[in-house]
Amino acid sequence: MTEPATPVPAYAAVDLIRAKRDGAALTGDEIRWLIGAYAQGEVADEQMSALLMAIYFNGLDAAELRAWTGEMIASGETLDLNNLGKPSVDKHSTGGVGDKVSLILAPLVASCGAAVPQLSGRGLGHTGGTLDKLESIPGWRASLSNAELTGILKSVGAVIAAAGAGLAPADRRLYALRDVTGTVESIPLIASSIMSKKIAEGTGALVLDVKTGSGAFMKQTDRAVELARTMVALGAEHGVRTRALVTRMDTPLGRAVGNALEVEESVAALSGAGPADLMEVTYALAEHMLVLAGIDADPRAAIASGRALDTYKKMIRAQGGDPDAPLPEAEYRQQALPAPSSGWLTRLDALAVGVAAWRLGAGRARKEDDVSHSAGVRCLAKPGDYVQQGQHILELRADDPARFAPALAALQADVIAIGGQPPPQVPLVVQEVGG
Amino acid sequence: MTEPATPVPAYAAVDLIRAKRDGAALTGDEIRWLIGAYAQGEVADEQMSALLMAIYFNGLDAAELRAWTGEMIASGETLDLNNLGKPSVDKHSTGGVGDKVSLILAPLVASCGAAVPQLSGRGLGHTGGTLDKLESIPGWRASLSNAELTGILKSVGAVIAAAGAGLAPADRRLYALRDVTGTVESIPLIASSIMSKKIAEGTGALVLDVKTGSGAFMKQTDRAVELARTMVALGAEHGVRTRALVTRMDTPLGRAVGNALEVEESVAALSGAGPADLMEVTYALAEHMLVLAGIDADPRAAIASGRALDTYKKMIRAQGGDPDAPLPEAEYRQQALPAPSSGWLTRLDALAVGVAAWRLGAGRARKEDDVSHSAGVRCLAKPGDYVQQGQHILELRADDPARFAPALAALQADVIAIGGQPPPQVPLVVQEVGG
Repeated sequence: MTEPATPVPAYAAVDLIRAKRDGAALTGDEIRWLIGAYAQGEVADEQMSALLMAIYFNGLDAAELRAWTGEMIASGETLDLNNLGKPSVDKHSTGGVGDKVSLILAPLVASCGAAVPQLSGRGLGHTGGTLDKLESIPGWRASLSNAELTGILKSVGAVIAAAGAGLAPADRRLYALRDVTGTVESIPLIASSIMSKKIAEGTGALVLDVKTGSGAFMKQTDRAVELARTMVALGAEHGVRTRALVTRMDTPLGRAVGNALEVEESVAALSGAGPADLMEVTYALAEHMLVLAGIDADPRAAIASGRALDTYKKMIRAQGGDPDAPLPEAEYRQQALPAPSSGWLTRLDALAVGVAAWRLGAGRARKEDDVSHSAGVRCLAKPGDYVQQGQHILELRADDPARFAPALAALQADVIAIGGQPPPQVPLVVQEVGG
Repeated sequence: MTEPATPVPAYAAVDLIRAKRDGAALTGDEIRWLIGAYAQGEVADEQMSALLMAIYFNGLDAAELRAWTGEMIASGETLDLNNLGKPSVDKHSTGGVGDKVSLILAPLVASCGAAVPQLSGRGLGHTGGTLDKLESIPGWRASLSNAELTGILKSVGAVIAAAGAGLAPADRRLYALRDVTGTVESIPLIASSIMSKKIAEGTGALVLDVKTGSGAFMKQTDRAVELARTMVALGAEHGVRTRALVTRMDTPLGRAVGNALEVEESVAALSGAGPADLMEVTYALAEHMLVLAGIDADPRAAIASGRALDTYKKMIRAQGGDPDAPLPEAEYRQQALPAPSSGWLTRLDALAVGVAAWRLGAGRARKEDDVSHSAGVRCLAKPGDYVQQGQHILELRADDPARFAPALAALQADVIAIGGQPPPQVPLVVQEVGG
């Protein structure tokens, strides 16, 4: 005999939309019905988008968010990473300009003994995507079967791969709907989208890098902190030890922005020659990941010893890539942003540089576009550097010289500032959330 | 040579949704593009519903509303009622329980020399529809060609007919979308929907009956007044002399609720035997309609002389109906709501009675449902009447006795109240807007 299935009460979508619109909280049963009925086509796209807009305005409380995220997870498969013989810990960044931290962090933390199952998406807009960056390495492929994934986690410890379509498919569909209906920028929906995929991925622990500042999705620190707190709480509720660092994204991280350029800088960082700001964020995240994984190790020593770079090369090879092959180089280069006077560079705006790199071809305007692997921006000076009048701050790179004009148009007003004194040194980690 | 068409700039729907979501006002060009692109299928239903929800929260300012309504009108045909040889004036009610005023008012005002082109919709929910009521008259048909419509306006002066699909078709489609996405209850969208159809209909003047109270769509008087002001302003902007009366809808208007029952009461009213509350609202609206039409006539005399009833019979015959044929009668009757004590009835809740009549079969739950022409409620006592303990306040009528139980369930708590003194007499017209 089988147990009879628990019947889910039937609701009318319009009643639930109106309830949320009028500020009521939806019950777990109502949310379960909604997500299920949407998957079945009984709730139409136009009803779900109206509900999402109502959620944009009225939010989801903690119980609603837990239920909503639970339904996203339950809509697909969940991976089991309990039998790897080592603790698993992952990292997620909300995205920034020049944010190549994942490329360094995954092999670094894996080289200390953890399993790092980095399942990622692609870049859209002015922030780059980790998979796009790695695809500039000849031979490297982003798609792995679940068996390949766990095999590499056992043998190498680090995997950066495309999140399979089986993880939280309801969120995938909702995200596509949010993208065209102006309902992306909702803290509970962002938190649910990120966390449902990470929880379904099966990681035992998670460190979130929530960016704040001009180049970040969340420009305001208080909103970034709210997002961080929401995600940390969701992780805890679903049994994933979660912490978040809110970090500054006012200027590009490191000096390279663009796919192959960022891979090159990541390899330099793993070789011990990383820019200070990039390493500050990388080490802060690595230390929290190791604590959550219960591993007592010094990430600086892992880089100094060459173990981290060695793990990186194994990770790339395990996915078909040749870590020693030359990276694609852009045919055209153009210097940009001459300093209007001599002095200390006090500002180099992340968003403007991100948009310039995007327009040079490093990013995509639409999901179906290809990216250029060699296009991007090198920062010849960073805030804190002394520059001479007329010295160029940026070097633009593109496969097609027609790309320069639109990129330069993104670099007009207020992108840089020169001062008579060096800018104050401020820590990049603004706040730690969770513990 | 023809003028080149003014090109409409192209926008991305998601940018306009986000702008409205963030509280910006859309330009006339943006609204024109949106409505046009929606008609073309370039803006998807899920985008329009998200925009409608953003409008629910952030509203439309006067310029946006003028442009929005203009696009609704421009999406279809507009009738020309300038060659009737008499002034045209119409009336619209936002809908109430027992609100059969249109059936009396159209022939009454027409009998005074105006043309009244009442193009109506069908009832949905607890308020009845004028067309549903008239369809209880054997032979009467709601659909007329434009030529029939103007012909009857010339000869009889009054027409009550279904608004053709050619009037404001964009609004028709938007209303269907709003209905399933929880975006009906937005004052600018309600105002635009009502006024676009009335303006396209070509009436020279318009009096609005905006109901407030338990049986009304707008429960709160301040919201009703805001809707009235919004509609009066829209009418003026589009060249239609418009006034609004905000009237109480806390208890059913008259004693009959239900299709044939309301026709019967309307005929009594036209014969000079109408209930006081029904006549108070009817005469108030008639006087404003006559003023706006520039006609100096006394509607009370038109009823006393029999002219109004005569015009009513001509109006019914012109649309195939037999005004002297017996109306359908319900097979089953049940007394309900015994008075718990003797005293003055001080309250009889309009919404409860409306829902009961709806459940008895007088209204429809879904657009595609049929209505029962004979089902409904007769109010055996009204507020202000003295009742004896145990005396029934309502008589329910249905074609199917199974309808009584759900109707009685709507008549449970707080439907009536009995007091030691008669309730204070308050005017039904709460406020006049426009002039």
